[in-house]
Amino acid sequence: MVEGKINEIHGWAAMKPGLAVEPWSYTPRPLGAHDVEIKIEYSGICGSDLHTIKGEWGPPNLPAIVGHEIVGRVITKGDAVTTLAEGDMVGVGAQVYACLQKDCNPCSRDLDPHCPHMVFTYNSKYADGAQAHGGYSEAVRVDASYAFKVPEAIDPAHAAPLMCAGATVFAPMLRHGVKKGDRVGVVGIGGLGHLAIQFARALGAEVYALSHSPSKRDMCLELGASHFVDTSDKEQLAALGRTLNYLFVTSSSESNQYNDYITWMDFEGKIVMLAIPVGKLSFTPAEFIHSEVAVTGSLIGGVNVLRKTIEFAAKHNIRPIIEKYPMDQVNEALQRMDAGKAHYRIVLTN
Amino acid sequence: MVEGKINEIHGWAAMKPGLAVEPWSYTPRPLGAHDVEIKIEYSGICGSDLHTIKGEWGPPNLPAIVGHEIVGRVITKGDAVTTLAEGDMVGVGAQVYACLQKDCNPCSRDLDPHCPHMVFTYNSKYADGAQAHGGYSEAVRVDASYAFKVPEAIDPAHAAPLMCAGATVFAPMLRHGVKKGDRVGVVGIGGLGHLAIQFARALGAEVYALSHSPSKRDMCLELGASHFVDTSDKEQLAALGRTLNYLFVTSSSESNQYNDYITWMDFEGKIVMLAIPVGKLSFTPAEFIHSEVAVTGSLIGGVNVLRKTIEFAAKHNIRPIIEKYPMDQVNEALQRMDAGKAHYRIVLTN
Repeated sequence: MVEGKINEIHGWAAMKPGLAVEPWSYTPRPLGAHDVEIKIEYSGICGSDLHTIKGEWGPPNLPAIVGHEIVGRVITKGDAVTTLAEGDMVGVGAQVYACLQKDCNPCSRDLDPHCPHMVFTYNSKYADGAQAHGGYSEAVRVDASYAFKVPEAIDPAHAAPLMCAGATVFAPMLRHGVKKGDRVGVVGIGGLGHLAIQFARALGAEVYALSHSPSKRDMCLELGASHFVDTSDKEQLAALGRTLNYLFVTSSSESNQYNDYITWMDFEGKIVMLAIPVGKLSFTPAEFIHSEVAVTGSLIGGVNVLRKTIEFAAKHNIRPIIEKYPMDQVNEALQRMDAGKAHYRIVLTN
Repeated sequence: MVEGKINEIHGWAAMKPGLAVEPWSYTPRPLGAHDVEIKIEYSGICGSDLHTIKGEWGPPNLPAIVGHEIVGRVITKGDAVTTLAEGDMVGVGAQVYACLQKDCNPCSRDLDPHCPHMVFTYNSKYADGAQAHGGYSEAVRVDASYAFKVPEAIDPAHAAPLMCAGATVFAPMLRHGVKKGDRVGVVGIGGLGHLAIQFARALGAEVYALSHSPSKRDMCLELGASHFVDTSDKEQLAALGRTLNYLFVTSSSESNQYNDYITWMDFEGKIVMLAIPVGKLSFTPAEFIHSEVAVTGSLIGGVNVLRKTIEFAAKHNIRPIIEKYPMDQVNEALQRMDAGKAHYRIVLTN
């Protein structure tokens, strides 16, 4: 059995619920035959990280090192790993394990994020009881199936946000078959939204970017949106009636007006929840029946989706707009993210 | 221009909101070149009739003759009607007009019930201001596009409920592509539900009939359900977790437990609202994201769906179970329907 190289992993952990992390280290579980050990170079900050450490999605398992947009080099690999080599630059997203068996209902159809054996990259436990820790750290050990080679065309710092934000927005576009000519709305122009615009445009869609921040208009148009809709302008919203075939909801605002959203959709349009804001979506049966609109959601991307996300991004020059922060300024970065000031994704660097 | 034969149509109208109709007559609008005049033989009673006259869907335009499961013989046809002949036995559903033009968004894709020019069979106005009146009556005049020949294989009394209830349940099965092996739930076993079981089974699906009335078990199994689930039995419901690919909601109960429904669905399953019960459906974003289930609705069937409904029913021996009431006992029939005692559709006979 191969031993890992870093046997005490130093990172930044939430020690109590709140918007702060502090230096902390843990002993990683033994390196399995199918695992790789990665020395982390970049780690994106995702909204999920903040929800988790603040306890907004329930009490976290503390201490917890969050971060699930990880890019770094393989420094050790288990005996059974054939797809990766030491020195490979790889990315890891929000998931580090699933059974990936053909007789597993979700795994058999590219829904491995819903595998009953799935392990999230952080705040989640392996079958052996060990807690998974994430990317605000110097290293991580994960199943090689969930470490993806970063193509040379993509700057590794840019690859980080593609691993979660990128795959999360691309997964439902693949599943529902977004295609040339579709009218695609993206509401909430942040880490996910600014990538959703690019993926939808590259698929040939006519993209409507929706935000209450008119200052984002130019950026949205540059990224490929054909239309920018100021959601604080009632006239612009009224003009959107029955227009969209898809609406991807990346906004985590509690004031999302879901009943307005349904009026923007063409018949049989699909509203896809990607964010998990506080509050509920409430509709009358008639709102569904008279529009034939569907409301659904999508979790993250599984193995095949992640592979396709990276390939598609490389091919179509889809890149996040990022701000870099040194790892030891992670708390400043978290504050900036929480204040909604990040343009549009923060990547921590080691 | 051809004149109609019945120039004062006698029927049973709601004169004030409530569960009662009384004899009343109206002068029909002139018979248009594309219209047919139909002498009514059978008229099904649909839940929509009750909602309408009771004012549960807003104040009705009174007096109103309801009924939109109409079967009778063509007695006059306009100059431009080529598809029907005098003497033809035809059925009319919940819609009597749409533009049916290729440049109309909904009409161009079999969504003519959503045409901006659509006219419902009753409680609805034509462009000329005339009110459409329905089937609790001796006759009706409608656009020939919305009168469908009843195949000889189908008893005309049985054809009546296929025109609304049948098309309403079959439309979303066609649209979403219900197919062999799909696990299809039907919640609410009444006029719509008992037909939904038969249509889904004939498409090759494994059907789960869901009802809080165990007395309906045998009938459901005879109609083609593979499983009967008593919705008042928590163990039976728990066993249903993550099972269904589709759930057709035909129950108009205010106590529908939509948040339970979502737990019965397999990943990517679809819940399709066909009834319009009082109350709302409320879900957290997480309920959508962790299930990838879609909630949607379907109105009625358009021209092509109605044609397919009748053909498919004839071919696969799909028939409603009906109770016949003479037209002059319409009020007794309405009371029985309102009390949930009809097994499973009442058809009025002239």
